[in-house]
Amino acid sequence: MNDILKNTIEAKKIVANLSDTFRNEVLNKMADNIIKAKDEILNANELDVKYAKDLPNSILKRLKLDSNKIDAISNSITEIANLKSPLGRILDGFENYAGLKIRKISVPIGVIAVIYESRPNVTSDVGALCFKSGNVCILKGGKEALNSNKAILKILHNTLIEYNLPTSIISFIDSRESIERLIKEDKYIDLIIPRGGEQLIQFISSNSKIPVIKHDKGVCNMYIDKNCNANEAIQIAINAKTSNPAACNSIETILIHKDANILEMLIKSLKNNNVIIKAESNIANQFDLIHIKDEDYYNEYGDNILNIKVVNNIDEAINHINTYGSSHSECIITDDYTMAEKFLNEIDSACVYVNASTRFSDGGEFGFGAEVGISTSKIHARGPMGIDSLTTYKYQIYGQGQVRQ
Amino acid sequence: MNDILKNTIEAKKIVANLSDTFRNEVLNKMADNIIKAKDEILNANELDVKYAKDLPNSILKRLKLDSNKIDAISNSITEIANLKSPLGRILDGFENYAGLKIRKISVPIGVIAVIYESRPNVTSDVGALCFKSGNVCILKGGKEALNSNKAILKILHNTLIEYNLPTSIISFIDSRESIERLIKEDKYIDLIIPRGGEQLIQFISSNSKIPVIKHDKGVCNMYIDKNCNANEAIQIAINAKTSNPAACNSIETILIHKDANILEMLIKSLKNNNVIIKAESNIANQFDLIHIKDEDYYNEYGDNILNIKVVNNIDEAINHINTYGSSHSECIITDDYTMAEKFLNEIDSACVYVNASTRFSDGGEFGFGAEVGISTSKIHARGPMGIDSLTTYKYQIYGQGQVRQ
Repeated sequence: MNDILKNTIEAKKIVANLSDTFRNEVLNKMADNIIKAKDEILNANELDVKYAKDLPNSILKRLKLDSNKIDAISNSITEIANLKSPLGRILDGFENYAGLKIRKISVPIGVIAVIYESRPNVTSDVGALCFKSGNVCILKGGKEALNSNKAILKILHNTLIEYNLPTSIISFIDSRESIERLIKEDKYIDLIIPRGGEQLIQFISSNSKIPVIKHDKGVCNMYIDKNCNANEAIQIAINAKTSNPAACNSIETILIHKDANILEMLIKSLKNNNVIIKAESNIANQFDLIHIKDEDYYNEYGDNILNIKVVNNIDEAINHINTYGSSHSECIITDDYTMAEKFLNEIDSACVYVNASTRFSDGGEFGFGAEVGISTSKIHARGPMGIDSLTTYKYQIYGQGQVRQ
Repeated sequence: MNDILKNTIEAKKIVANLSDTFRNEVLNKMADNIIKAKDEILNANELDVKYAKDLPNSILKRLKLDSNKIDAISNSITEIANLKSPLGRILDGFENYAGLKIRKISVPIGVIAVIYESRPNVTSDVGALCFKSGNVCILKGGKEALNSNKAILKILHNTLIEYNLPTSIISFIDSRESIERLIKEDKYIDLIIPRGGEQLIQFISSNSKIPVIKHDKGVCNMYIDKNCNANEAIQIAINAKTSNPAACNSIETILIHKDANILEMLIKSLKNNNVIIKAESNIANQFDLIHIKDEDYYNEYGDNILNIKVVNNIDEAINHINTYGSSHSECIITDDYTMAEKFLNEIDSACVYVNASTRFSDGGEFGFGAEVGISTSKIHARGPMGIDSLTTYKYQIYGQGQVRQ
């Protein structure tokens, strides 16, 4: 690890000062080389899948690659190359009282450590995103994907070598113990992005000396207002719960106004879509649902399970969401302008929707290109993270001999 | 402390949803009330100064208030009221492929804890800045300023009460032990801003579960290039070192190109301004200076002491600065376009100057208004922090029934 950290110092200087054209040439070559090495990557992945056969299906699904998925990995790198450079943007510019011309300009953050699990495509996505944005990355993938990650990394490294660049621009560590060490190395690392289990994220944010952007759990909620389009409400409810229950932007609870008048139809439609519903006693008894416990409202089920709660008014819904939610994504279904604005303003979450599914909370769906992740932190980056979130800024100040009085 | 933390939950909701007009009315009333309570504040300050008479002069100077300083405290609050609201700004807005109208809008961060020392004006400045930006603050002032801080706080609280607002919008804790507790309360607090000694900042960033924006030391450097205006170089050197040696934006080291040809004149001028100079043996012997040790280059002297080092070229200067500096503020003195651009681009510091004194690195000098501080962090806010740095954003998304395919 010592060598890896020390090598980032030189790598950081080199990668920060490349031109965007050169960066894109390297990225496009990486994309080509991934396709050429398809068999090699698939063989490595087969090993991982073999060793992982006792792991849950959800992990296996994320781990397993096929020819199409490798095409997607390659395409994703090409897309990153095609993004507008996030560097050198003038974010603000002004002249101060002394005639200094002050420019606030976007620059790389420096060294970014990303800790992730199971999905081998994160290796190339994050490697490419950090390279495009002039950062060094230190990748720490899950042990279940080690062979796949190493196979992909080998292609990226060989491409860097082709262009006479140090491989430490995309560094990789594989020992599990090293996370504890990594999060103390604030002299070398500028930012940690953990993407993974709740426990891992808790451990890192409690113990890191380095700033952390969390990709934590999503306890998303939907509120159905009294005045709403019933069909819209039901379609969005089904989409937000069932289209990908394992995704962090799926809903866990529907709050429904007592006079919304669609409760029966909603429950029926959800049941038809194999959703298991929990509710308070009166509703549970009436519709033959599971009786809910208060702590269920904090749950990210990651499955076709949903809480339904009847509320007296929008304030009760907003209070519930700000109390039990994880400030990720929430939606209101309403035809009432005042209620829509109230919900948009008073909900303290990264993404607040009117009449649309929370499932859109995603960098790709927002049009940001390849995914950095969805931040549940409030500082620096919040919600779907575009490549811009991998930059910081500095002030460049042009003087003509000014001194401070 | 439990009550203070719990009360922030309700206070956060209230302060976030006030109108800017109302906020400004309250702030202007605070400014008036500070003037009316001048005697009260001065009496309290006298107590602090009496107890502190054994403390270093630099602390006493920061601690001591007089009638003019209280006018300045009041004016600063009025200035904050006059700032354009940092909230509700649309930072970005676009329509995605599904026709969702996505707005990225600035919102308060939530609860901000600020830990500071000696200067009683920080109490009102930070209180007013957080109020203007819709945040709750938890203030933790130095014990040497306790009476002054409490006197100022009383005015702010009484004004909040006049307007039927909870005093917990500007919370205050005074026990020293409580910092250790405070930095673990990530359920209640969204951001910690420590302004104070290096040890305090180290302790907080190593142990905090909450994101930290550091206001750390300033080891600022000046590089005098071969082609430079000699008078400009010398005037800027004197200003950057001697105009306020205790300030974090003062320089500690001058790197000078071996062919700059102004070394003798520079040393003479600095000596005439009572600067004690350290240098490597050959220069030290030649000009009767103190012999430098390598670790001196890391020092923030806070005093009229300066290192001078002769370098062979700009790369050596840039390497030196990126190695020994604290990434705060640096300047180059040059008439050479290429060197100016190289320095601006390759120096990894919050503020990089051409032909101007580093002493301008300050929110007030930049035209940002009252000071939040100067961040030495790279994440979220870097360099002089305007009131905008006390905001984050959320995405508000306007749909017409869209679901994700």
